[in-house]
Amino acid sequence: MGLYQRWRRLRLPGLQACGLHTAAVPNPPHWLVERLGLFEELWATQVKRVASIAEKEHRTIKIALPGGQKVEAVAWNTTPYQLAQQISSTLANTAVAAQVNGEPYDLERPLETDCDLRFLTFDSAEGKAVFWHSSTHVLGAAAEQLLGAVLCRGPSTECGFYHDFFLGKDRTIRGSELPVLERICQELTAAAQPFRRLEASQDQLRQLFKDNPFKLRLIEEKVTGPTATVYGCGMLVDLCRGPHLRHTGQIGGLKLLTNSSSVWKSSGAPETLQRVSGISFPTAEELRAWEEWRREAELRDHRRIGKEQELFFFHELSPGSCFFLPRGTRVYNALVSFIRAEYARRGFLEVKTPMLFATKLWELSGHWEHYQEDMFALQSAGSDRPASSQSDHPTSHPTDTLALKPMNCPAHCLMFAHRPRSWRELPLRLADFGALHRAEASGSLGGLTRLRCFQQDDAHIFCAPNQLEAEIRGCLDFLRSVYAVLGFSFRLALSTRPSGFLGEPCLWDQAEQVLQQALEEFGEPWDLNPGDGAFYGPKIDVHLRDALGRPHQCGTIQLDFQLPLRFDLQYKGQAGAPEHPVLIHRAVLGSVERMLGVLAESCGGKWPLWLSPFQVMVIPVGTEQEEYAREAQQSLWAAGLVGDLDADPKLTLSRRVRRAQLTSYNFQFVVGQKEQSKRTVNIRTRDNRRLGERDLEEAVGRLLELQNARVPNAEEMF
Amino acid sequence: MGLYQRWRRLRLPGLQACGLHTAAVPNPPHWLVERLGLFEELWATQVKRVASIAEKEHRTIKIALPGGQKVEAVAWNTTPYQLAQQISSTLANTAVAAQVNGEPYDLERPLETDCDLRFLTFDSAEGKAVFWHSSTHVLGAAAEQLLGAVLCRGPSTECGFYHDFFLGKDRTIRGSELPVLERICQELTAAAQPFRRLEASQDQLRQLFKDNPFKLRLIEEKVTGPTATVYGCGMLVDLCRGPHLRHTGQIGGLKLLTNSSSVWKSSGAPETLQRVSGISFPTAEELRAWEEWRREAELRDHRRIGKEQELFFFHELSPGSCFFLPRGTRVYNALVSFIRAEYARRGFLEVKTPMLFATKLWELSGHWEHYQEDMFALQSAGSDRPASSQSDHPTSHPTDTLALKPMNCPAHCLMFAHRPRSWRELPLRLADFGALHRAEASGSLGGLTRLRCFQQDDAHIFCAPNQLEAEIRGCLDFLRSVYAVLGFSFRLALSTRPSGFLGEPCLWDQAEQVLQQALEEFGEPWDLNPGDGAFYGPKIDVHLRDALGRPHQCGTIQLDFQLPLRFDLQYKGQAGAPEHPVLIHRAVLGSVERMLGVLAESCGGKWPLWLSPFQVMVIPVGTEQEEYAREAQQSLWAAGLVGDLDADPKLTLSRRVRRAQLTSYNFQFVVGQKEQSKRTVNIRTRDNRRLGERDLEEAVGRLLELQNARVPNAEEMF
Repeated sequence: MGLYQRWRRLRLPGLQACGLHTAAVPNPPHWLVERLGLFEELWATQVKRVASIAEKEHRTIKIALPGGQKVEAVAWNTTPYQLAQQISSTLANTAVAAQVNGEPYDLERPLETDCDLRFLTFDSAEGKAVFWHSSTHVLGAAAEQLLGAVLCRGPSTECGFYHDFFLGKDRTIRGSELPVLERICQELTAAAQPFRRLEASQDQLRQLFKDNPFKLRLIEEKVTGPTATVYGCGMLVDLCRGPHLRHTGQIGGLKLLTNSSSVWKSSGAPETLQRVSGISFPTAEELRAWEEWRREAELRDHRRIGKEQELFFFHELSPGSCFFLPRGTRVYNALVSFIRAEYARRGFLEVKTPMLFATKLWELSGHWEHYQEDMFALQSAGSDRPASSQSDHPTSHPTDTLALKPMNCPAHCLMFAHRPRSWRELPLRLADFGALHRAEASGSLGGLTRLRCFQQDDAHIFCAPNQLEAEIRGCLDFLRSVYAVLGFSFRLALSTRPSGFLGEPCLWDQAEQVLQQALEEFGEPWDLNPGDGAFYGPKIDVHLRDALGRPHQCGTIQLDFQLPLRFDLQYKGQAGAPEHPVLIHRAVLGSVERMLGVLAESCGGKWPLWLSPFQVMVIPVGTEQEEYAREAQQSLWAAGLVGDLDADPKLTLSRRVRRAQLTSYNFQFVVGQKEQSKRTVNIRTRDNRRLGERDLEEAVGRLLELQNARVPNAEEMF
Repeated sequence: MGLYQRWRRLRLPGLQACGLHTAAVPNPPHWLVERLGLFEELWATQVKRVASIAEKEHRTIKIALPGGQKVEAVAWNTTPYQLAQQISSTLANTAVAAQVNGEPYDLERPLETDCDLRFLTFDSAEGKAVFWHSSTHVLGAAAEQLLGAVLCRGPSTECGFYHDFFLGKDRTIRGSELPVLERICQELTAAAQPFRRLEASQDQLRQLFKDNPFKLRLIEEKVTGPTATVYGCGMLVDLCRGPHLRHTGQIGGLKLLTNSSSVWKSSGAPETLQRVSGISFPTAEELRAWEEWRREAELRDHRRIGKEQELFFFHELSPGSCFFLPRGTRVYNALVSFIRAEYARRGFLEVKTPMLFATKLWELSGHWEHYQEDMFALQSAGSDRPASSQSDHPTSHPTDTLALKPMNCPAHCLMFAHRPRSWRELPLRLADFGALHRAEASGSLGGLTRLRCFQQDDAHIFCAPNQLEAEIRGCLDFLRSVYAVLGFSFRLALSTRPSGFLGEPCLWDQAEQVLQQALEEFGEPWDLNPGDGAFYGPKIDVHLRDALGRPHQCGTIQLDFQLPLRFDLQYKGQAGAPEHPVLIHRAVLGSVERMLGVLAESCGGKWPLWLSPFQVMVIPVGTEQEEYAREAQQSLWAAGLVGDLDADPKLTLSRRVRRAQLTSYNFQFVVGQKEQSKRTVNIRTRDNRRLGERDLEEAVGRLLELQNARVPNAEEMF
């Protein structure tokens, strides 16, 4: 099929008539015709070249397959896809790419030497990345053809893909254009166009993309070798490392989700781009299942729950800071109390440190050099004002600039250093719920996920090197018990030294070994991320999974060899000589605000009793019982429990009970004449189980017990 | 005695020889001679004038005395002092001034008309004010004569007096000069110089003080009538309203305490003055008793206790903000928990609000106009940074300047206004422990008394006008129960509308009546401070007295008619029409930090169990019991109690028990072999009472009970 015919086939009949802002480019533009022509020419040459190498070498190579099986293949001829077919047709159909000696590899690319061969499917994270990256080529092709877009970049993400492109200075993509773009994407996947991998020289690359300034910039900045790969797929030719699917037909379901703008920052002036994001699956059924899941997740969106349940709100006069209403504060305080109780049990010592510090502190800690842009700084007021009377308080040094703390660690280092320390005091575990401020860009703010002001269940452990292992074990145990109560499963990952690490290699060796041993003994599965640690120490990342199976990074356990040196922290060792402590940064909830959002979504607003801002609704049968109902409410209040009252005379008893259940009140205390005279309450649960009549005082006591035990199912255990 | 002789008598022999920075002015300066000459001349004229009026009128007047008795006197002749002598010589000797028809009056000033007459003694606050104000004249005279000081102002304070004077641009007063100044003061009091009250015309005033720029400025700014009073006392002539003691000999004991600098701010450029403060008493015995009391108070100084008990510290990198160490945080959190429990019982709803707000909020609340200088403001970071992706979060308006909140009320107004409100929701009692920042001058900072960052047990009650009385009653009851637990007595004062009040007079009438009625019904004594309310509403001030009898202003109940109007707060009234709520600002502890300091001093570091950071010291008899001791400690920790361990093998058991008692541990758990085998503990209290052997679990449970009941004497009640 000639170029022009292909182009015609892609134009959607009736598109011009639908009155959209968008109009398909009527004829393929000059540069596209040229690019495709050059690609086809180079492709033909490459095909010939490979065939000739294969013929000339005529070499048999040995391939080790996943099960341990070894097979023979022909160099420069046999493809991973052919070998997958030999194993099973299912594998051949579901494989999205191969791994050759651990490196990603196209299924249709001939093998060249002896190798280990594995297959990637959509089930693995690597497989999803290939799948979604291939899908973004489809999106790019559609944008190029429908909108005349100049493509910039199109990566896969944790949950789908996006493509950034340029439409001209004043043209933005609108939500109403997504359905048309999606239809073209679906046409392109239905056409099952193959992905073709071409190796091109730097000159050829520049020739192919001479009309795309973004790609030219990328070639200049990223292509360091003599050649780089280009992929052709239908009418799209793109600069890309690969690998990809065999053809677009492997994408059984594709959906575009959002449109937005983004910024291209290269060495030149920033350019505003348009971004379209989407998701795709091997089959239409999987897409439908995902859409179902997403509807459920949206129902559980914490911003929605926060508004419906009156937990919190935001206000433009304090962007990025949350206003917690009484109910949200209730949940918040319950979380903090939980962690405080664990601190008491585990020998952590809570402290309170200031919020404003002279920049000298941040210079000392290194934050001023590396983090200044994200900090709120202000000129010191007051210090230059005349004192109305002398005092015995030491006068402050001239401290011109102050900054709100973004982290607690430097303040804890000052606390460690404020008097001489001895080995007897170690491990010293300082915990702090102090408010932290970070100057996040306004565009990145959203609900409780990212805030400018938040609190952490932050603690810093100062310990001797030989106490490290016990402390790490203690931190892991702390994580497990908290997450168990919160109903989360979790997965750990150890990140080891990166290339630019600071400090003694032997110290790192020892610390990494200690962490690894603690993880082994802990008995939960864990992953190794070599080279992923911070420059100041190795760390254990904690990914929890909420009730919908979504991952969240909340807790962390992080070693720090540098901060104790920067602050010159010392303690008198057992032998009498000064020694530097090791510092462990750790958090279990992470940001309390964000954890509150995660929990709201995870329980879908049906809070467990101990966290619930809707513990009991007291419902008098008639107005005569209103006074007794208020007494019952007062008993709940006196015990520190949440007791609300619904005496609305316009609603029947059963309507009021139903209303309380729909609002997710864990319990309803119904009080009629009989209950009043016997000082009892008739109890129902939020899933409408009738627990019957109970003595008021006993019922309150039982609720208090269940609350303090932090059980997940107080309604069943009552 | 001629001027020069008097002057010579005052020069202290040997002063020049003692090598002080200070040297007595060798001869009375020209201006002083002139001033004294003029004063004596005017005084002679006044004496003649009064005598002539008395003679001419020859009138008998009727004086009503305190007991209801009425006596006759001669107009322009009989003095209050003479009448006091008629009543009793004790009264005549102890009276410091009189009140004539409620106005302060010199004892030696002849009465002019029929009147009510009362006498003030040192025992009353008004009497103390006269006494200390007279004492500051003595200090001024000494400074003028010893240092050649140009006097500025010399008021009495709550606890003594000070005098501000000018010594020249580069001369400051030093601590080492105080003893000499004090000796001169004592000479002047021994001389029993009379205070002589002179009425002078504006011209005469300007003539008298032509060499004192401060007094000239005061005459210009403050003297509005045709005449004003001047007092002569020995060599000192000063502009002053009076009244004073009869003579300096009534001051039996006087002590100078501190030297510092202060600033004179009048319409001209500010001038740095020197300040000397002191205290005085009718007898030397009373001064000695006060010095004894002060030594005790110093031992109880919270800064000293804070350091000794490791409760908190300060650091130059965050001036004016406190670092609470683990033990201080323990006390802090116990106070907050206490108030939280009261909130739950009393239907207050805790909320959490942001700390940084756009200045637009502060403009709306009026803080920007009136309070800006005391706020920490900063340029908004982040808002001008490009967003990396669009989001559904509402983008913020350009808010260039942000400021840290100095008060919570505006945030609570936003919370009230964030959705429509109905009368059914009132009263809405929002409580907030949010951190507040105020840019206090560095010279005014000292310990926990004045901080740049602190938290309050702050609440705002939004209510309908007809709910006001019940709410005020509730607030007063709240105060009483908290102060009872903390062991404070207190005194209330109602401050009514000032001259420049805002709002409807009828609203003020009603509100003042409501407050007055609530105070009456409350049944505790209260004072009326007419005209002392804020411009936005009347208030009830609360002065508590600590264990040493020292007053502290902590709690407040303040009505606000203005803020609801500024924020246009409305609720749907019962009749359906929108109405403005009344706002009550109230606090019981006030600043939690300051209250912690007051409590530390009040209990002298011997904390009641529920606040104590030293609850239990576990002491194993020998090393064999150390493991069991750790188990006991762990039991205490699991219950959320403070349990420390003293297993120091270098000290005997009794020495360790004594050490724990001296450190004020409420209880000591001694564990020997018998206790270990029976899982018991042997309990002693901090006053070394032996409570004997108890089951470990039961002992922990009993401590928890006593802690939760917040008893003041857990050691006795155990």
